[in-house]
Amino acid sequence: MNAHLKTFESRLAANAREIEGVLDALLSQQVLDDEIARPENLRSAMHYAVLNGGKRLRPFLVVETATMLGGDRDAALRIGAALECVHCYSLVHDDLPAMDDDDLRRGKPTVHIAYDEATAILAGDSLLTYAFDIIASTSGIDETSKVALILALSRASGLGGMAGGQALDLAAEKRAPDEQGIVMLQAMKTGALIRFACEAGAIVAGSTAEDRAALRRFGERIGLAFQLADDILDLTADSATMGKTTGKDAGRGKGTLVGLHGMAWAEATLSTHVNEAEALLQPYGERAAVLVEAARFIAERKS
Amino acid sequence: MNAHLKTFESRLAANAREIEGVLDALLSQQVLDDEIARPENLRSAMHYAVLNGGKRLRPFLVVETATMLGGDRDAALRIGAALECVHCYSLVHDDLPAMDDDDLRRGKPTVHIAYDEATAILAGDSLLTYAFDIIASTSGIDETSKVALILALSRASGLGGMAGGQALDLAAEKRAPDEQGIVMLQAMKTGALIRFACEAGAIVAGSTAEDRAALRRFGERIGLAFQLADDILDLTADSATMGKTTGKDAGRGKGTLVGLHGMAWAEATLSTHVNEAEALLQPYGERAAVLVEAARFIAERKS
Repeated sequence: MNAHLKTFESRLAANAREIEGVLDALLSQQVLDDEIARPENLRSAMHYAVLNGGKRLRPFLVVETATMLGGDRDAALRIGAALECVHCYSLVHDDLPAMDDDDLRRGKPTVHIAYDEATAILAGDSLLTYAFDIIASTSGIDETSKVALILALSRASGLGGMAGGQALDLAAEKRAPDEQGIVMLQAMKTGALIRFACEAGAIVAGSTAEDRAALRRFGERIGLAFQLADDILDLTADSATMGKTTGKDAGRGKGTLVGLHGMAWAEATLSTHVNEAEALLQPYGERAAVLVEAARFIAERKS
Repeated sequence: MNAHLKTFESRLAANAREIEGVLDALLSQQVLDDEIARPENLRSAMHYAVLNGGKRLRPFLVVETATMLGGDRDAALRIGAALECVHCYSLVHDDLPAMDDDDLRRGKPTVHIAYDEATAILAGDSLLTYAFDIIASTSGIDETSKVALILALSRASGLGGMAGGQALDLAAEKRAPDEQGIVMLQAMKTGALIRFACEAGAIVAGSTAEDRAALRRFGERIGLAFQLADDILDLTADSATMGKTTGKDAGRGKGTLVGLHGMAWAEATLSTHVNEAEALLQPYGERAAVLVEAARFIAERKS
């Protein structure tokens, strides 16, 4: 492993611990103003769903983008935590028997196994709801930025984003999509939240529309890289490294771009995505060093 | 039926048609900015879940409260539509096999029957998400009010509100709650959204903190009345009138206050709630006439 990547991984891990501190505090919190009570079993299921390890890549992108652009770090951590709640809610619902029917997530029982199915549905619902609470109650950003964040997050995660992508993914099991269909499915299911992470950092920093658009495009590129790397890993890594069942997408006959075009094409395209992502950050010079490393890490990660 | 009630019911019905127009437009909409695509099957399931009849009582309360306090009617209609999306998402998820396992809702197949379980989960998720989009993209209210609405809605509908109430309701099937437990469960599961409806009208109108608090208390009272009337109806009305299986709560041995204290107590308490609700509106004089009728309607309705 090269030294750059090692430094990056330490930074990512340190950030993950910080984000987990914020998430743990939010999900252990006493009853808030306007809340009637927090039922313990449901709160505990939400905590279990979120504090389950993971690289915390999306919050990392929010925090590093905001930092690069001069935003408030504490505010960025909270927005990152809100985004992680949305990401984790989607995992809880995707794992349900009616969806992907997975018993394990990162080597631990999924929420509907550790608790029960009804609790898993409600824990997902409540995490999604809580994300908007967290954004709306963050200090250090103005009301206009909060509304912009909420609008961008809801579009990235709803019918026209992540949830829509999951619907397309389920449909793909019955009828394999063509190349355009695969690209759209992936842009919605995983791309939209990664794109949002980078755009959110720019919103937190109160950046210009130009910066916001550039970071959004950067997020789009690394989202593509993330998905392609994932498809490659799904074919090459073993289950122990990934902490989940691998070879599953291919096994189920779902089309991936790697399956369609082969491994050599996939690796070349992955490089292109990373190069394009880096080029978008050139105007920020040295300040963008961490995000450039993030783009490379996303392409080169082994799990 | 008295003349007042009849006039009120026409107004409620006219309002419902207007709200349904807004909901139909929102759920038939083309792809919005920041959305990648709207998968047709999921959009259609969301539309089916929301455009299924119903009295639209919650949006009515938003609109009438806002109107009484001089708020923008179009903005109030959109906030009412957002609230109805949250209410309908909760019905879709509550009907799932892992939850209440209901095949019929208002005499029609529930979403997981008309579509499938995975689609029902995602349609609920997407409706909840869309509610925050609708609020964030409403014109005619300022950014501070939008953030206040989003914060109040997320607290009313998440862990410390509606979803938490549903978790308590499921737990109540295994172990009957005491009186205090029943009161809390009901305040969370149905009360919180009704309270929010009235408070939201005040926020839309940019009212003073005093007005907002008064309408919030009014919402709390009519929420109690709504639930008590529902418990009474559950014991007295037949399934055909209600469009759903009645006698269910009692049949499952879930405690209700009517079961605990009897019908005479329930009817007396219902009157008390309505009187207290009316008293809270006294400062608004004639302007509050519709909301006073709403409180009476909630107590006297037969379905």
